[in-house]
Amino acid sequence: MGDKKGLTRRQLLAGAAAASLGTITLSASKAKAAGTWDREADILVVGSGVGASTAAVVAHENGDAVIVIEKAPILGGTSAKSAGVLWIPNNFTLKAKGIADEKEDCIKYMARFSYPERYEANSPNLGLSQSEYALLEASYDNASDAIDTLREKGALKVAEWRMFALDRSAPDYLDHVPENKVPTGRALGPVKDDGTMGGGVEMMAQLGAALRERNIPILLGHRAMRLIVNEAGRVVGLEVDSAGQVVSLRARKAVIFATGGYVHNPDFVANYQRNHLYGSCAMPWATGDFINIAGAAGARLGNMSGAWRTQILLEEALQSSKLAAGVFFPPGDSMLLVNKYGVRVVNENRNYNDRTEAHGIYDASQAEYPNQLLFMIYDQRTAEAFAGAYPLPSKPSGATHVMTGDSLKGLAERIEQRLKEVSSRTGGFSLAPSFADNLKATISRFNGFARSGDDQDFHRGDAAYDSEWHLVFSPMRTDTEWPANDGPSVTMHPLRDEGPYYAIILAAGALDTNGGPVIDASARVLNTEDQPIAGLYGAGNCIASPSREAYWGAGHTLALSLTFGYIAANAAHREPRDDA
Amino acid sequence: MGDKKGLTRRQLLAGAAAASLGTITLSASKAKAAGTWDREADILVVGSGVGASTAAVVAHENGDAVIVIEKAPILGGTSAKSAGVLWIPNNFTLKAKGIADEKEDCIKYMARFSYPERYEANSPNLGLSQSEYALLEASYDNASDAIDTLREKGALKVAEWRMFALDRSAPDYLDHVPENKVPTGRALGPVKDDGTMGGGVEMMAQLGAALRERNIPILLGHRAMRLIVNEAGRVVGLEVDSAGQVVSLRARKAVIFATGGYVHNPDFVANYQRNHLYGSCAMPWATGDFINIAGAAGARLGNMSGAWRTQILLEEALQSSKLAAGVFFPPGDSMLLVNKYGVRVVNENRNYNDRTEAHGIYDASQAEYPNQLLFMIYDQRTAEAFAGAYPLPSKPSGATHVMTGDSLKGLAERIEQRLKEVSSRTGGFSLAPSFADNLKATISRFNGFARSGDDQDFHRGDAAYDSEWHLVFSPMRTDTEWPANDGPSVTMHPLRDEGPYYAIILAAGALDTNGGPVIDASARVLNTEDQPIAGLYGAGNCIASPSREAYWGAGHTLALSLTFGYIAANAAHREPRDDA
Repeated sequence: MGDKKGLTRRQLLAGAAAASLGTITLSASKAKAAGTWDREADILVVGSGVGASTAAVVAHENGDAVIVIEKAPILGGTSAKSAGVLWIPNNFTLKAKGIADEKEDCIKYMARFSYPERYEANSPNLGLSQSEYALLEASYDNASDAIDTLREKGALKVAEWRMFALDRSAPDYLDHVPENKVPTGRALGPVKDDGTMGGGVEMMAQLGAALRERNIPILLGHRAMRLIVNEAGRVVGLEVDSAGQVVSLRARKAVIFATGGYVHNPDFVANYQRNHLYGSCAMPWATGDFINIAGAAGARLGNMSGAWRTQILLEEALQSSKLAAGVFFPPGDSMLLVNKYGVRVVNENRNYNDRTEAHGIYDASQAEYPNQLLFMIYDQRTAEAFAGAYPLPSKPSGATHVMTGDSLKGLAERIEQRLKEVSSRTGGFSLAPSFADNLKATISRFNGFARSGDDQDFHRGDAAYDSEWHLVFSPMRTDTEWPANDGPSVTMHPLRDEGPYYAIILAAGALDTNGGPVIDASARVLNTEDQPIAGLYGAGNCIASPSREAYWGAGHTLALSLTFGYIAANAAHREPRDDA
Repeated sequence: MGDKKGLTRRQLLAGAAAASLGTITLSASKAKAAGTWDREADILVVGSGVGASTAAVVAHENGDAVIVIEKAPILGGTSAKSAGVLWIPNNFTLKAKGIADEKEDCIKYMARFSYPERYEANSPNLGLSQSEYALLEASYDNASDAIDTLREKGALKVAEWRMFALDRSAPDYLDHVPENKVPTGRALGPVKDDGTMGGGVEMMAQLGAALRERNIPILLGHRAMRLIVNEAGRVVGLEVDSAGQVVSLRARKAVIFATGGYVHNPDFVANYQRNHLYGSCAMPWATGDFINIAGAAGARLGNMSGAWRTQILLEEALQSSKLAAGVFFPPGDSMLLVNKYGVRVVNENRNYNDRTEAHGIYDASQAEYPNQLLFMIYDQRTAEAFAGAYPLPSKPSGATHVMTGDSLKGLAERIEQRLKEVSSRTGGFSLAPSFADNLKATISRFNGFARSGDDQDFHRGDAAYDSEWHLVFSPMRTDTEWPANDGPSVTMHPLRDEGPYYAIILAAGALDTNGGPVIDASARVLNTEDQPIAGLYGAGNCIASPSREAYWGAGHTLALSLTFGYIAANAAHREPRDDA
């Protein structure tokens, strides 16, 4: 004790670097070995979804030299798989209609939805911390400007998004709270050359064309490995892997990450998600690379247990966790969801993100998740009159994921049998002995709600969201002989007293996760002391969501990514340019 | 683009160090400036709770020179505030009674409780990942050895923990699942000199004496600031703050952190906890320092949204979030808990950790947390017959946190009035208009359960835990004139048809959080690539809990800390000693 030993400057410096960078070994740096950069730009943009593409276009328009780095062999990320909707408050179509989407009101809606347990209209920052509030404010302040910039620069054509065949404005995902003063009309969508509305493919095709028209270099198949920082602690470049070769890219101003979440990284999902996610419709490259890359640079992580949730088909997910789509809306009116005890646990017509939370409810007495799997139960009416509305097959029994029984008891037996077959993948999840009896009582009670139009348990159909999106996702077939739903609620119809009955097993999944490094209102990545890591920016699903887990309306995730990509490009533009 | 610029080795090295260490500036290193260490040891132990004290004693007994570093001005951490119970499977008292606590069975219990959604008896690793399973295995393999080592070395005297006045073995916190083959008898407690059982004060007094008897240097009031690492990436020391002075401590073998969680760090709580935690009975120094310290060294974080949960008194927590105690068990039999709609949501007699989860249930239809606050409702019987059992005052209305009404309607009005007064602190939480009517129906239904002994909604009283711990926490007064509960369930008694009625507001709180850097089965802290950070170990609430959020039985948190402190000291002993 007390002996004093020498420690050289070199020991400390080199040691600190090696240890604190985790597996980032400086000796592997090609730039270091050669004393050169392979390529350079003012701003490196990682990813090519809507956030990254927006950042690249805006940076270019600001006069910055940009390189886009994309791990996948194709452009567009998960954005290209989406519906291409963009939730933009105070947008040009609202203004054109003379609808005032006031900042103060809109931020109240955002705060109410994102922080329900702390939102208080009369408290400073509405009950939020200053930094939480600032992220909401930045969302409002920049969303409309961002989309207008893309429009003005000819990078993206958008118009009010109309609900497909309904051709009406879309209600927000929480339209029925008093804080939402503009409950419809914030959603925009991409317009094709022929004037019709397109989806995510169209949106990303336009943005991809915008990149190419500007001759912005696009490095496909290049995986970001690690940041390179200068002696002042500024991020000055990036090492990327290209088919096993290390490529050193210089960023004279900044590196902007707008990549995916970690939903396809099983270790991260096990480590950070409280409940099991069985699969996701994100692109397979959503493996959360930015978490380790930014973590090694000292980034603070936030919202790590968060996700953009959706129900998914259990049996599809057990085939592959990389899914084509989620069950965004359970179709049908003579349909309900029950848990292992045969009881309803959620409004079946709530939006996918909020509805899927029900899977995670913990039962303290049994120390179990009774809703881990939910069972979509329906009768012949729904099977036929809504046939083809995913996940209903076009013929009632025309899919292996559909179970059938002549009676509720028989249906329960089929479900139990199916659960046994997948037992090793579900933690042995099985029906309670009371399932069939409870299901009968549950249906009886639901049928009463359908007749009265008043779901006293879960308020299904009470909000405009429920009924409008029911009509969008779940239109009744025009070629059916089943009578129209003439009851008081378009979303609820009594189930028949006789079979056959059908069941489909639903599990929790996600569009992607939404936790990662925390950013500030300028999209700067913060370190563990809440100071910006100079030269490092983030947007999209790779960062801690500025809305926490709330999904403000159709197109929310894309718009959030686009908005903070725009913010990041403009803030990065103001960084000092390192020409040394 | 494509211009190649030079980049010196020094730029890269120094830059990487500065950036990736976050705010850890090497120029602030006193050791670096002077080329000396202020003190040195083989093993530095940070913290002085049961995990840290165990690590220090075991390291000393292994022949390693140890220094204990404690931020607080006193020894003992939150362990000294605890009941001093230690949940030790296969312990010497079970062996003495001939009770076999088999490894395979016990790990099944652990896995079933910690991973209910993935546990499957016939799957490899019981459905867990290899690393998750290995942590459970390490818990079982080392707990009994750890306690025996402390006993043999004269550091801690323990015996079977008996439930206070009941003088019976304690049922585990999930005693009624088939996987629990030894549902009572795993809990040990400290034995005083006079042979009686003590609590946390006694336990930490004995361990503190063990440190002093061994002349282990104890640095009180020394706050760990940052790790020092050598050029091989090994942790070789620690900089600590002592009254504003930087002290450099060398660790020839390892640094072991066994410090507190982050429950008293409001930023971390806001960032990582999904639901608001209103307060904690942890010592005020539980601010999660290790998260940033290890994070700067590249540690991977896990279980960040986790906590050892307990209900707390809202009004105490609004005075100060640093609480004396939680509401570990709502006392009384003619008592129930209801939410803002006046309905029960949980088994009132479940253990505090599982029960408190109910506060976090999200209602998708209303986008709200309807159980954010729960209301403990009781009648004159409970008010008098269980008077003095916290949080019941010794006289029915003898505390400001108790609200009273002659009728349920009147009581609801008093609650609503109180909620208005604290509205800015609770996100404007208020009762639903249906509260009083629903409460009446809820009580009527509960009274039926009390008469039948069968709580069909939440199974209150079904498990031995419920009734045994009811008798421990909530013994009926011997001086009361109220008749004994002669119903079929000792935990439930019908509420009277007439007033007065009483209410107490309960909120979610925690003993501490349990997320942080992830360790392996040797208590080594892992980096973001799941490789050990050489020379860095962790145990206790500062790390990602090896049991995730499950509280296996009375004394679980202390025992987990003690066990992994023991593991850490032994693994650190085997590290190469750096004498350079």
